[in-house]
Order: sequence, then structure tokens, then C-alpha cells
Amino acid sequence: MGSPADAIPDHAPQRTPELAPDLSALAARLRRVRRHSEELIAPLEPEDLGLQGMADASPPKWHLGHTSWFFETFLLEPRLRGWEPADRRWGYLFNSYYDAVGARHPRPQRGLLSRPTIAEVLAWRRRVDAGLEALLAELEGWEVPQAAAVLALLELGLQHEQQHQELLLMDLLDGFSRNPLEPAYAKGAAAPEAAYETAWSGASAADLSTTPETGGWLELDGGLMEIGHGGDGSFHFDNEAPRHRQWLEPFAIATQLVSNRNYAAFIADDGYRRPEFWMSEGWAVVQSRGWQAPRYWRGAEWEFTLAGRRPRHPEAPVRHLSWFEADAYARWGGARLPSEAEWEQAAARLPGAFGLLWQWTASPYRPYPGFRTAAGAVGEYNGKFMSSQFVLRGSCFLTPAGHARLTYRNFFPPSSRWLAGGLRLAR
Amino acid sequence: MGSPADAIPDHAPQRTPELAPDLSALAARLRRVRRHSEELIAPLEPEDLGLQGMADASPPKWHLGHTSWFFETFLLEPRLRGWEPADRRWGYLFNSYYDAVGARHPRPQRGLLSRPTIAEVLAWRRRVDAGLEALLAELEGWEVPQAAAVLALLELGLQHEQQHQELLLMDLLDGFSRNPLEPAYAKGAAAPEAAYETAWSGASAADLSTTPETGGWLELDGGLMEIGHGGDGSFHFDNEAPRHRQWLEPFAIATQLVSNRNYAAFIADDGYRRPEFWMSEGWAVVQSRGWQAPRYWRGAEWEFTLAGRRPRHPEAPVRHLSWFEADAYARWGGARLPSEAEWEQAAARLPGAFGLLWQWTASPYRPYPGFRTAAGAVGEYNGKFMSSQFVLRGSCFLTPAGHARLTYRNFFPPSSRWLAGGLRLAR
Amino acid sequence: MGSPADAIPDHAPQRTPELAPDLSALAARLRRVRRHSEELIAPLEPEDLGLQGMADASPPKWHLGHTSWFFETFLLEPRLRGWEPADRRWGYLFNSYYDAVGARHPRPQRGLLSRPTIAEVLAWRRRVDAGLEALLAELEGWEVPQAAAVLALLELGLQHEQQHQELLLMDLLDGFSRNPLEPAYAKGAAAPEAAYETAWSGASAADLSTTPETGGWLELDGGLMEIGHGGDGSFHFDNEAPRHRQWLEPFAIATQLVSNRNYAAFIADDGYRRPEFWMSEGWAVVQSRGWQAPRYWRGAEWEFTLAGRRPRHPEAPVRHLSWFEADAYARWGGARLPSEAEWEQAAARLPGAFGLLWQWTASPYRPYPGFRTAAGAVGEYNGKFMSSQFVLRGSCFLTPAGHARLTYRNFFPPSSRWLAGGLRLAR
Amino acid sequence: MGSPADAIPDHAPQRTPELAPDLSALAARLRRVRRHSEELIAPLEPEDLGLQGMADASPPKWHLGHTSWFFETFLLEPRLRGWEPADRRWGYLFNSYYDAVGARHPRPQRGLLSRPTIAEVLAWRRRVDAGLEALLAELEGWEVPQAAAVLALLELGLQHEQQHQELLLMDLLDGFSRNPLEPAYAKGAAAPEAAYETAWSGASAADLSTTPETGGWLELDGGLMEIGHGGDGSFHFDNEAPRHRQWLEPFAIATQLVSNRNYAAFIADDGYRRPEFWMSEGWAVVQSRGWQAPRYWRGAEWEFTLAGRRPRHPEAPVRHLSWFEADAYARWGGARLPSEAEWEQAAARLPGAFGLLWQWTASPYRPYPGFRTAAGAVGEYNGKFMSSQFVLRGSCFLTPAGHARLTYRNFFPPSSRWLAGGLRLAR
Repeated sequence: MGSPADAIPDHAPQRTPELAPDLSALAARLRRVRRHSEELIAPLEPEDLGLQGMADASPPKWHLGHTSWFFETFLLEPRLRGWEPADRRWGYLFNSYYDAVGARHPRPQRGLLSRPTIAEVLAWRRRVDAGLEALLAELEGWEVPQAAAVLALLELGLQHEQQHQELLLMDLLDGFSRNPLEPAYAKGAAAPEAAYETAWSGASAADLSTTPETGGWLELDGGLMEIGHGGDGSFHFDNEAPRHRQWLEPFAIATQLVSNRNYAAFIADDGYRRPEFWMSEGWAVVQSRGWQAPRYWRGAEWEFTLAGRRPRHPEAPVRHLSWFEADAYARWGGARLPSEAEWEQAAARLPGAFGLLWQWTASPYRPYPGFRTAAGAVGEYNGKFMSSQFVLRGSCFLTPAGHARLTYRNFFPPSSRWLAGGLRLAR
Repeated sequence: MGSPADAIPDHAPQRTPELAPDLSALAARLRRVRRHSEELIAPLEPEDLGLQGMADASPPKWHLGHTSWFFETFLLEPRLRGWEPADRRWGYLFNSYYDAVGARHPRPQRGLLSRPTIAEVLAWRRRVDAGLEALLAELEGWEVPQAAAVLALLELGLQHEQQHQELLLMDLLDGFSRNPLEPAYAKGAAAPEAAYETAWSGASAADLSTTPETGGWLELDGGLMEIGHGGDGSFHFDNEAPRHRQWLEPFAIATQLVSNRNYAAFIADDGYRRPEFWMSEGWAVVQSRGWQAPRYWRGAEWEFTLAGRRPRHPEAPVRHLSWFEADAYARWGGARLPSEAEWEQAAARLPGAFGLLWQWTASPYRPYPGFRTAAGAVGEYNGKFMSSQFVLRGSCFLTPAGHARLTYRNFFPPSSRWLAGGLRLAR
Repeated sequence: MGSPADAIPDHAPQRTPELAPDLSALAARLRRVRRHSEELIAPLEPEDLGLQGMADASPPKWHLGHTSWFFETFLLEPRLRGWEPADRRWGYLFNSYYDAVGARHPRPQRGLLSRPTIAEVLAWRRRVDAGLEALLAELEGWEVPQAAAVLALLELGLQHEQQHQELLLMDLLDGFSRNPLEPAYAKGAAAPEAAYETAWSGASAADLSTTPETGGWLELDGGLMEIGHGGDGSFHFDNEAPRHRQWLEPFAIATQLVSNRNYAAFIADDGYRRPEFWMSEGWAVVQSRGWQAPRYWRGAEWEFTLAGRRPRHPEAPVRHLSWFEADAYARWGGARLPSEAEWEQAAARLPGAFGLLWQWTASPYRPYPGFRTAAGAVGEYNGKFMSSQFVLRGSCFLTPAGHARLTYRNFFPPSSRWLAGGLRLAR
Repeated sequence: MGSPADAIPDHAPQRTPELAPDLSALAARLRRVRRHSEELIAPLEPEDLGLQGMADASPPKWHLGHTSWFFETFLLEPRLRGWEPADRRWGYLFNSYYDAVGARHPRPQRGLLSRPTIAEVLAWRRRVDAGLEALLAELEGWEVPQAAAVLALLELGLQHEQQHQELLLMDLLDGFSRNPLEPAYAKGAAAPEAAYETAWSGASAADLSTTPETGGWLELDGGLMEIGHGGDGSFHFDNEAPRHRQWLEPFAIATQLVSNRNYAAFIADDGYRRPEFWMSEGWAVVQSRGWQAPRYWRGAEWEFTLAGRRPRHPEAPVRHLSWFEADAYARWGGARLPSEAEWEQAAARLPGAFGLLWQWTASPYRPYPGFRTAAGAVGEYNGKFMSSQFVLRGSCFLTPAGHARLTYRNFFPPSSRWLAGGLRLAR
């Protein structure tokens, strides 16, 4: 991840497709991203590759197959002459949720796909990589619009694969957490936890104006602001656009994420037993699932991580809690969650905005005014999830380098806890 | 209901509590509202009083008890010296969702309460009415702040009872709809349907600029607007405040509600079988519940109503559909739902804004900036439902006279269909 | 009920159909049985008539309608010239489970049928009664086989109605038990509890050979026995025939039913927390439903009854427990449940065999060797339930006079507790 | 499997424990059985080892671990001095259902145990094997009762492991069947299907008295029979004893199993759409699960097997159907299922009694008169499942050699289809 200071994306101009980009640099980036997915499974045992802890998660092998399917389905099949897709049935197995592309294997049963084997999936990745390189090699002679369309889809596929790299690790953590043996994905410097610890140490040090009790607050004037991605040609998902105006009242936002110590005080004050802090829907979830602490807390002093069971550092940001818990904590603390517009206005001046934990906002995930989905099946990427979910902003310690962005809108249902989410307060 | 022109509430200054209002007028209003609840069950058979069609609905008898419980619990017990509450267990039976007041009977089992009998519930209502009158009579001599608090709670109780009058009829329609005999609540002029038909005829006539195909559009400039209730002393729920600024881009809003004829075209175009129009969450609901039309459509030409099975008028506004259906219809139509701010800006110029059907908006139900809940258990009234629901605006043909308001925010989960909801388009 | 000595049915020859029975006596019995159903609802409030506490139970009004439907469907419609059935849709509403007769209203939704009203149902009963009398009046001139078929169906309808009289009260107890107000069906001498108490006092007194600790045991030789109904022309259900041979080893059977005091000792010995006493399937039910005592026990000393909450008499037979509980208790006690053959061999010498509580046996409900179902839809009466249920023998304090029989096979799933069941041990 | 003629077990006197058996022969048998479990996973890919298709099934790796756990828990820990059990948590993971031994991992989540790895499980098997050999070597010097107890548990462990060998393959078939790629466990001579085909060809040839339409019937006199295991010292499970008398009426039993062709006629005659053939409980299952054919039929001519998708031979015995389907088929055919006593009387003269398919009987799984469970946790082996299940008799093509027995009582719930079950008729 690097230090928090580095983590604020600078939007350096990734060359835009229409300007005849440096294709060999793109090919290199493609190779790097694709290879990284495979590096992620290096520490795993063969049995881990099919592990699906719950319906919302997917096995590592499935992530590797699905990202190849994405390139094959949206790029190679329609654009590369002579491309022979994999076994037709694989399309059924590795489609995630694209209704326009046809039927698909039920999500909760991805863990039942002991076949194709990892060897077959990796071989397929090889073929897809070769296909993508062949397509890139062909592009020189194409008309600009056609070439630009290919490059846009290629970029989308890369970004998509990076999203799945992060998801693969979150899903794995969920799966491992259900095993009483508490397996570790990796230990020591190799574990993602190392990056996490480095990052929050840095974030704390960079705090603008702390007090012992509450951390610092950044006060911002309101007014008519602009948020969203401005369409400068750099990559963004459709849901980040268009850039548009929004009126903000003056607000304050915490410079630090809520820590384990902070959150433990909420629990000690019977936070999970006092309905007055909770949304009615969240209170029902607390009751029915018996929540008493964040998802991976274990006893008074431990938490479960990708490095196995480890001591819980009191000053580290609390993580793996739901929107309901974040919202209840904020109410208990006499504060609230920031809106995504507030977050976006403040982020450049906030330590830990990127690279630590996704941060729940008060904003339901809905389209920006003037939002348009992409044409075709790719249009299902984001737009169809715009009900009953909340936006998270920033990025987390599992987010691949270069994937974070100021205007990035992540989103999950309010009861989700397996994603690497935390919170900061506003008022 | 009156004509649509009448239906726009004028916010005539109901005297504010702190100004020593005309207490005898208030007492008269109180009697009128309380009596109206009982008039609503006059057409019912004894067996209907316990009918609960589903967990979300409540039996008529329960509504009558619960509204008394509200007055007793929040007003008489704490404020009227010597008040003896009903059987203590009734508090358990008739609490709807107030956690601060204690445990409560499970909502899905309200239909199992064959006791207390309607006679006992009506006798309780008599006692509560007498208690309220006694409390009003006492107020003259009180300090202003205490008296004002009582008057505010009394007003809240009245408004609360009016909400339940509307709910009682919606719930009853749901219950009757599950009986193959298709019972009618009332027929002819006595049926709420009569008011409904009068209202939409009037609304159509008053249309600003119709075209045969699409109805008319009202174009509005955007800019920095104010929405919400301004705190002029007139009654409003906490969720309508504070009045605050919001930036709106220019928009157009349909002058008419979507009609049965419009909606039938969506169905004929395979609207319920094409996932591209639907939120992912809504599409799952369509599949799992087998939705193929609005909730009460029966065959090609009929619908089920409080007057029994009746022909479905093609030009009447389509009703009893979920937010998911409203949203899908709008997308199919190349339009969208209005935000609640847009609706509020336009409402005064919109025929059918009030008195026909609640209108789904694009806005998730969330607190306004600066929102504060009331202190104590009454604070649970609105605030704790601000996740995973959508706002509806206006009022419907079942809304009691005088209960509608420009800033009123109604809210339901996006899959709800039993409420009297419809939609109008924006773009 | 009378005393236990009276309760052993004597199989006095009800005249068989083929011998030109005394039709006026039959008509009188018919009137008596039909009237008794209506007497059963006399103590109820109108709201109680639609009360359905769970999917397995039915509202009182439904029982009254269904028994009329049975006569109308199987007797009047096919046999009485010119008979005009009730509203065709009523057949849909009041069919219990006869697939051959057509579709039916879903069982869990019987409580949603606020219409037809009780007045309509009672008027229907009047019409059906009149139809049955008309049919009886016609019979004199018929051919013997046709007349005999009518008389057999009439007898079946009567027996069917008596079964529902007992069920109506069991179902009502279930429904009332879910109301925190603990309503009483009837108090004092009018309550079925009075008969219950008289009966078990008598049964205790008549005990053959008691010891303070365990009660007495009746020792019986085994050998080749005959069980089942012998077809002497007296009424019996199809599942009681044919009479057939069965080999029994010598056995002992308890002369008394297990008492509340006995059962409390099982609980005190952690009976509900020790899996070694339980069938695996039963243990899962104990866990998932949180069973800790029989269904209607309330605290240490009370139980809920049709007379409301009452002190639990330690010597009274324990009641309203499932087969799983009966079986676990027997295992804890170093004994077992009797098979139905053993019970039938011993019943004539057992106090309390009839008129107190149905007694769970060790026998799964399966057909006797040579079992034949009746032709037509009536054949669905018993035969299709012969999987995953257990047989109970005897009769209970709610069983109508004259309905008990030595060979009667009652049956319920092993987790059922709302029926008036108890147990006696064997070894 | 050998030919059907060979398949009837001859009860050759396995030397009884108390007679100082040939310990080296036992050690050799132990090695053979243990090794066979591991041979079964040889054709599998690593990913298959964790495959659990449904809650009722277990992954191959779990079967390998559980059978070791059984030996370790019941034999090595209590009896072998100095034995160090595996990681204590493994006891939690690999306990199947023994409540007396402590808590256990939830059955539906066995597929989530990607760890311990297969390498660790196999290493554990090595250690357990060594421990068992060490224990056997020690036995010479022990007192006879102690040694006999060890030998009895060793025999139980062996039989237990053989049961799991059969289950492993049935469970695997279930898991593979959920993969659209239709993987094959093994093809050609190596596949269990080869043994199956050999066996039914032989069985058909040996048929006693066939007719083209119905196959042959074996007529048997009834009378007072003995069934159950006689306790001659040969191994048997507790549920097969004691041998006891039972009265049978004369009966006929089919010499052949019902074939695919027979069963297809039932389907063609709308067997799955006519409730009159079904138990009420079974009919509900047919509706809710949408059954239209046996579990692994695929289209008109194929079935899914451990050799992958293969043509369905019309004369082969129909397999993988539930008791409900077997019972409905029999009723459609004007016949019934045999009782387990009838089956046991006839088996020696029935082709295909062993080695083809387990055969559903009409008998609920209940204890024989005088049944006693073993002392201690091993007593949970069979006795606690004696409700709501039905007995199957014989053995199937997946049953390990030497594991079949005339008195063997297999049992499954009536809706189970994944076991290799078929049926033969009786009347």
C-alpha cells in the first residue's frame, strides 16, 4: 500500500484510449495485473481453492476463472477473429450476474464446482492472456473508434480484475474464519496485515490535530460543491459520473478512523443491547444473528485476520463491521457518518482516507443526477445495485496499488461485515 | 377528499400550543378524529376485526387498541394524576414498535389476539377519551411549558391516529384480498373507491398540457432550493425538518400519474420478464414471488378493491405497486422517478399531487441534514426506519381529510405493495 | 365422559346398514351430533371463531363449515336429487385434504377467512341438516345396496364430525395459549377440565396394584394374538381393519398413566438436557424449539387449560407432550412405550385406557396386513398419512361420548404436542 | 462384488473375540480395509476432496478423517497407553453425531474445512494405523475380557469404515451431480458402474420364473418366523438383534427389482402428477421439490453415474429413488413393498438380493423387541435414529466385499434419494 501520504491517488493521466496510447506499456500492465491474481493464490493449499464460506463470497478458483471469463466474453469473443472460447458450459459457471449474457450457475453453489480444476483454470488464463496480447497486437491497424472501444473494455477488465483481487482476500478471510483451526493465509511480512499495520501507524502520526480522547476534527465550510468524476479521460466506473453540483452545509469530519479502543467503549456501554442507537432493521439483525462485536473479534483481546489469530491493537482502526454498527456507534457517540459528498470534499486532507479501510458513509447508493449506464451487458456492472445498499469511500489495505481513486464509490448492503470496512465520524 | 385543487394543504395556522389555543376547538377535533376510527369499522363483520393478512399488516381491532394505547402511554399515564391504565398486559399487546416502552407482542401474531374483544377495546377507547378530556380541562391552570408539552403530544396522538385510519383500510384490503370470496368493505357511495374515482377524474381534467401518448410535462428550472418543514408552528413530524437547502438541476415532471393503460403497455412489452429494467434486488423479488402485475390486478380487466372486484379503468392511475415496479416502469419508459426535493418543488402545480395515491420517489428515506429525533420513546416514531426504505410523497384517497401536507414524508420498503402507492415520471 | 369403567366401549350392535335400520333413531342421533358441534361454540366470542393459532390447527368456524362440506360433498351432491350446493367457492374453502375433490384453500390460511360469516355457516348447516333428513326420508323406497351405501356414508360423516368436535377444542386451546391474556373457554362444571378431573380420580382409584413409587404393572403372556377390527358390522375406520394375527412376547404394561409428578422428576433429572434419552430427530426439535417442559406447563406449578391457567395437580396424568418426549421419558425410566398390539391386548384391564388422554404407542402408523382403502375420494381419509406418524390409542376427555373404540387408531407426527396426549409405560 | 450368487453372505465364522483369534489375520484385514478407503480417493482431483453437495453428505476428506477419529476416540485414546491424540480440535471437526463425546462441527459446514489438508489427514491415518497395530501387538498378554472388548471395538471400527466407503461414493455422486460439467469419478472397468452392470445381468439371468410383463413372483407360506441376528458370535450391528419371532401371512415377492422400463411406465402414466398413489407427506415433497423422475435421470435416455453421463439401460434396476417414490410405484402397480421380515425370509431365494441396490421395505425403522443399545457413546451408533426412517435391506454395488449380511438393516428418511436404493414388489 505504501504510506498514507502516497495513497491519495493523483490521477496522473493514464493515457486515454483515443490518443493512441503506448500499447506496449498497456500490455505490460495487463501482464502485471493478471500475474498478480495468480500470485495471490500462491500461499494456498489446493483444498482452499474451492472454499466458499457463504453465499455472498466466492472461492479463490472462481475469482480466477471469472476474471478470465470477463475478458473472454466482453472482449475476445466479440472482437478477436477466430477466437475459440473455452467449453461453452464454462460461460454458465463463471458468469457472476450478467443477465444479458444468459443463465448462470447459482451463486451459493460456486463452492460445489470442484471442476474445472485449478490446472484447467490456469491453462485457460494462459489462453486468454495470449488472446489479449494478440488483440492488442492487431489494434495498430484498426479504425480509431473500434480500437478505442477495445481499449476501454480492456481497461474495464483490468479494473474488474483488481476488484476481484481484493474480494478474493476478503472472501478467503470469511471462509477461513469458519474453520475452528483458524488457518492463516500468510504470516509475517508476506501477510496483508503487515501493510495494514504500517498504514495505520503512518495515518496516526499524520493526524492533523489530535486530542487524547477523540482525535481531531477537520472543520469545512459548506457551499455549492462539485463531486463525482469529471470525465478527464482517466478511468472511472460509470457510477462515479457525471460530476455534478451539490449543496453542503458546514460540517466537521474526524481526522482519524474510529479505533478498536473507541469501539470497545461502545460495547462496554451496552451498545449492542440498547435499541436506541440502532436503525430498526439493524436492531432486528443484531437480535437474530446474536451480534456482540465486530465480525472477527475473538474474545477480549484477539481478532482473526489473514495472518491467523492475532492480538487486537487498541489504537488500530476497528474493522469488519456493518453499516448498522457504524451508524449505531456514531449515534452513541453523538455524531453521525459523513455523506459521500462530505467525504469527497475532505478526503485530500484526511490521513487514512486511502489504504486502510473502506469507510462507511451515510449515503445510500443511488445514481448521480444524469447517471447513464454503459450500453450492453457491461451496463449491468454497477447500476442495477442501486437499492438498499450504502456507499463506502476510500480504499483498504487489500486494494491493489493504483486502484484507489477519490471519486470511487464502493457499495454493500448495510448488514455486510466481511468486507474490510471501518468508519470515521462527522458532525 | 374534495377536488384535487382543494387537496393542496394550505397550512392554515393551527394555533400553536404555546399560545393558549382554543382548547374547546381542540377537544372537538379530538372527538371527531377518535370517532372517525370507530366509524371505519362500522361496515365490518365481527370476524373481520381480527383479520391479519400478513405480518406487515394489523387487524382492525388492533389499530383501534393501539391508537388508544398511544394516548394512554405517552399522555395519560405520565401526565394525568390518578390515571389507572388498562390491564398491564394490554401495554404488551398494543405496543407497536417502541423499544423504550418495553417488550411487545410479536407483530406477525396480532391476528391471534381474539381477546380482548371489540367490546372491551371500545370500552377502553371511551375511558381514554374521557381521560383526554379531563386532561384538557386541567390544562388551563398549568405552567405554559408543561401545557405546551401536553398539547404537542395530543397533536401527535391525533396525527398518529389518522395515520392508522389510512393503514387500517390498506391492511383490510390486503386481508380481504386473500379470501377467494373477494369480500367488499363497502359498496357504492360509501366505499372509498368513490372518492378515488372522483379525484382522478378531476385530476385528469386539470391536466396542464396533455398529449395523447404521454400526458404533459412540467418543466422546472433548477437552482438552490429549500425543502422541508420550516417550523412555523404548524404540526409536522420530526422527519420533515429542518428546512434546508438543496441544489437541483433543471428537470421535468409528469403532470399525470402513470395510468393502468400506461402500465399495461409495460407488461405487454414483457416488462416483468426483462431484467434490464430492474434493480438486481427487485428482479430477485419478481422471480421469487412470481410477480406479473400490480398486487390487486385480477385477470385482464379487473382489480380487487375495497368495493370488491371491479372493472379496471384504463385511464385511472395504476396503484398498489412496489417501488421496484415503479422504478422498472420508469426505466422502461426512458424516464426516472422524481427525487423528493423535485416533487416538493413541483407539487403545488401538479394535478393529483394529493388525494389520489402516494407517489414513489427516487429518494431513499434518510434524515435531512440537521435532523433531530424527539426526546424519549416518541423519538422512535420515525428516525429508526431510515435504512432500506424509499420515500413516497403526497397523500392518497384513504388519507383522512386534513392529514396531507406538502412536506409529508411517507416511507415503505421497496418491495411493499399493499399501500396505496402509484407513481409519476420525471426526467 | 362418565367413569373410566363405563368408558370401555361395548360395541353394542349399532344396527348394520343392510338390515333396514331404525331410521328414525339414526335421524335423532344425527341431529344430536350436529347440534353438539354448535353447542361447542356457545361459550366463544365472535372474534374467537376465526382464531387459528398455527398451520396445523383450524378455526372453530372452519370446523363447523368443513363438517357440513363433508356431508354435502360426499352425500348430498351425489345422492340427493335436486340438491343445490352452497356457493361453489365454499367447496374450495372447506375441503381439508381431499385431492380427488379438487383444489383447496391453503391450510395455514384458514384463519384469514373472515367470510363467510358464522351466520352464513350456521345457515348452511341448517340447509345441510334438512337435506340429510330429506335423504333419510327417501331411503325407504331404495334398493338395499344403494340405501346401505348412503347409510355407511352417513355414519362416516357422523364419526367425522365427532372427530372434529374433539379437534375443535384442541385447536382452540392452542390458539388461546398464544394470547398473553390466557383466555378461558369455559370455567367450572361447564369446562372440559371438570370431566378430565373426574376421570383421572376414578382411574387412580381403580388401579389394580399400586406401589408408592411406580404405580402398578399388569403382566401379560405373549403368544399369537389377534388385533384390529373384526368386521362385525359395527362402525370402524378403514385403518382399523382387517383383524389379523400378531405374535407378542410376554410383556408388562403400567396400569396408570405417567403423572405430572413422575414427569417432573424426569425434568429435574435434566431430562431435556441429556441427549442420551432422545431420538436424534427429537433432540434436534428440543434444541430448535427450546422445549423444557410439556406444551402447556406454565412455571413450576401451573398449566394452561381450557379453563384458563390452573394449578397443575401432581398426580394428574401429564398431558400435551410429543411422542419424542413420551419416548425419552420412557427411556429415562428404564422402560419403553407399549406397541399398539400390546395396548389393545391389555386395554380392557387398564384403568384410564379411555376418556383421559390419548396414549402414545411405540408403533409407527402403518397399514395392517391386507389393508384396503375405501373407493373414491373417501379413501383419502386415513391411508395417505401412513408415513412418519405414530399411533395413539384409547381416547381423551375431549372425545365425544360414544366415539371411543378398542381398535381405534389415532395418529400424529412425533413432534405434535397440541393434541391431548399422554403416555403409559411398558417393559 | 462378484456374481449375485456369491453375494449372499455365508456367515462363515469370523472367529469370536473371546477365543483368542488369529491376530495376525485380523491385522491383515485391518490393513486391507484401511488401505481401501485411501484407494477410493485415488481417481479424485485435490479439489474434489472437500466437495460437499448438501448437508446430508460429507466430503471425501472428511470420511477419511472421521473413520480415523472413530478408531482414535473409541479405541486408542481409552486403551493404548501413551497414545497422543491428534490436535484436540480435530475431535471437534471429525465427530459425526456422538453427543456423549462432546460438541461437534455443524454437519452442513463440513465442506468448509479446507484444513486440515489431505496430507495431514493421511499422516494421521498412518499414525492411527500404527497405533492400532501396536494395540493388537499388546493384546496377547491381556486378560480375556479386556482383550475381547478391544477386539469387538476394532471389528466395529472396521465395519464402520466399510460403511463410510460406500457413503463416500454415494456422497461424491451427489456432489458431482451438481456440477454442470458432469464429472466422472472413473470410467470403464475401474468405475463402480462396471460391477453394477455385471451384477444385474447376472441377476436377470438367474430369475426363477419370469413372464414378459411382470417378472416372476416367489410365493411363500406365512407362519411364525424368526428374524434378526442370532448372536452366533459373528459380527452384527446392535439393531439386528435380538433374533425374535414374528407372524407372517402368506405372501409373494418379486424375483426381480423394478427396472427402468417398469418405472418409465409409471411416469408415462402420470405417476408424478396423480396424488392418489402417494403418501400425503410424499406428495408434498413431490410438489415442493418438483420431482418428475428418479434423482439422476437426465432427459429421456440418460442417467448420471459415477462414470459420468451414460445411457440408461431399460432393463437395469431403477435406482436413486426415495421411499415415497418406491411406495407410490408399488401402489400404482397394484402391489406393495415387502416388510423387512418378508424380505429376510425370501432373500436366500431372490436373485439380486445383494450387490445391486439397497431395497426399500414397507417397514419403519424401529427397534426389535428386546433391543438393547451398546453401553457408552458407541450406543449412539444406531438406536437414536429409530423414528421417521424406513428400512432398506440387501446391499448395493458400492458395498465393500464382505460387508453384506442377511440381517443387515440399513435406514434412511423416506425422502432420501442420493443413496443407491431401488425396490422390489410384494403382494
